[in-house]
Amino acid sequence: MNAVHIDAGRVSIRPSFLLPRPKGHALIRLIVAGICNTDLELQRGYYAFTGTPGHEFAGEVIEADTASLIGKRVVGEINLACGACDWCHRGLGRHCPTRTVLGIVKHPGAFSEYLTLPESNLLLVPDSLPSDVAVFTEPVAAACEILEQVAIPKGEPVAVLGDGKLGLLIAQVLKIHGCEVHLYGHHPERAKIAGVSIGEPARFNWIVEATGSAAGLKSAIAMVNPRGAVIMKSTVHGNVEIDTAAVIVNEITLLGSRCGRFEPALKLLESGVLNVTQMIHARYPLTQAEEAFKHAATKGVLKVLLDNQ
Amino acid sequence: MNAVHIDAGRVSIRPSFLLPRPKGHALIRLIVAGICNTDLELQRGYYAFTGTPGHEFAGEVIEADTASLIGKRVVGEINLACGACDWCHRGLGRHCPTRTVLGIVKHPGAFSEYLTLPESNLLLVPDSLPSDVAVFTEPVAAACEILEQVAIPKGEPVAVLGDGKLGLLIAQVLKIHGCEVHLYGHHPERAKIAGVSIGEPARFNWIVEATGSAAGLKSAIAMVNPRGAVIMKSTVHGNVEIDTAAVIVNEITLLGSRCGRFEPALKLLESGVLNVTQMIHARYPLTQAEEAFKHAATKGVLKVLLDNQ
Repeated sequence: MNAVHIDAGRVSIRPSFLLPRPKGHALIRLIVAGICNTDLELQRGYYAFTGTPGHEFAGEVIEADTASLIGKRVVGEINLACGACDWCHRGLGRHCPTRTVLGIVKHPGAFSEYLTLPESNLLLVPDSLPSDVAVFTEPVAAACEILEQVAIPKGEPVAVLGDGKLGLLIAQVLKIHGCEVHLYGHHPERAKIAGVSIGEPARFNWIVEATGSAAGLKSAIAMVNPRGAVIMKSTVHGNVEIDTAAVIVNEITLLGSRCGRFEPALKLLESGVLNVTQMIHARYPLTQAEEAFKHAATKGVLKVLLDNQ
Repeated sequence: MNAVHIDAGRVSIRPSFLLPRPKGHALIRLIVAGICNTDLELQRGYYAFTGTPGHEFAGEVIEADTASLIGKRVVGEINLACGACDWCHRGLGRHCPTRTVLGIVKHPGAFSEYLTLPESNLLLVPDSLPSDVAVFTEPVAAACEILEQVAIPKGEPVAVLGDGKLGLLIAQVLKIHGCEVHLYGHHPERAKIAGVSIGEPARFNWIVEATGSAAGLKSAIAMVNPRGAVIMKSTVHGNVEIDTAAVIVNEITLLGSRCGRFEPALKLLESGVLNVTQMIHARYPLTQAEEAFKHAATKGVLKVLLDNQ
């Protein structure tokens, strides 16, 4: 089988052995995968990554212990948790200290003709939902995670900094929740994709920082009201400078936010209220992953998909 | 009258005009004042400060609109709020955007023979409470503020980073609240002053960062459990570098925390459960403020008091 390989910043496609299927895991044939900023960061050296990346996918189950899964389309939670620790018992396997993570930490990723995941990580994709939409489940779950962490009152104005892939999904999820969303970024026309307002100079009680840049957090801290909250979504390689005196004097809350649960995300996508198809800027066959990565890293480009044809 | 003056990093004592007493304000004769790290930071250029510093004090009311105040010992809230804005209506004058702050922002401070404050800022010091203890009300209020912001369950282990003046008060306040406090710092013997445990290598759900150094926040982020909280107390001059990826991946909360309400602090001091007298390392007459500042800035020195003799 063919799999994308990252090594010392180089993206290549390599012939690989078909993966062995551990007990309890399903063998999945990739249908379509999405390139995420984290993949581009992995390429740049984040987590000193070598191997097959990819964690946004829709696929078809080829082999599984549970016969009824075979032939079904699925998406899959990316954290492979131990299932036995306190975190796992609390339903927070996403923080299991011994977890591996699909395409990020010690588990080969989805940019491959085939991948494996525990059956318990899989969710069936409803027949009505195209794979090109289902592939957005993971980033939509990351957007939904915000509302699992903080109770933003309906009607509340919220600033979303960053009109890239994640920012556009967050803006939509918060709007559907009932927030009055103001989107800040380099592409004012994108507020239309999300159906929200273009950000104007203002201060907010709630700010989501999803610029993907080190400067975003500083802007967020300058824009948030005293006692307000900044939800941090941009995993940036290396250290970031912040004005801690402003955080303390204004008693600001900074809240790190990462992956979320797949169920609510898949339901949102199924309900058709999210506009994700306008976010697909290009698609490449898996075998042209190198070009696809280059395209995805180009300024202003939103989602680039990889098809397993 | 004599007043301490800071200008371009120099501390001096200057003869000054007696302050005019605005309507609603009390004229207060200083009894004793405490030098805080913020005063040392003001000297170093924090807030580009010029003028009379000092915000920890106990004094005697000399003139006031309310006759019953005259002759009484008082401490005073340091934020002079407008009283009319949304923040003030919510009881959060400490965040009033047009506030001035005693000895910090546009209101002459307490390191002076006389000072003025609005009567509404004043709290009577109970007869049983020595002025040397009452002078700790402001930093104790800053310690109590943590428990107004977050609900730390009783019995919960908490790490307090920093065994300086504020760290020792925070450790005591959290211990009295019912937390199992572990104190980290350069002076293991100080855990005894606070009546808490000496910190050993461990991870915590709750960490209070009160080291007063830029490195403290990095340590706190490395010590906190996923989904845990770091309460930030160290106002450090300039920017501080943090590993935002760790904050996001582990979904950590960073919470800025500043001043608190005086009532609960004064009550705690009155109840005698706090050990503050062992924290007094030196006292100087107001006229020797320059030496007092030098002493207070010396490594390992806790509270230095200024007496108005």
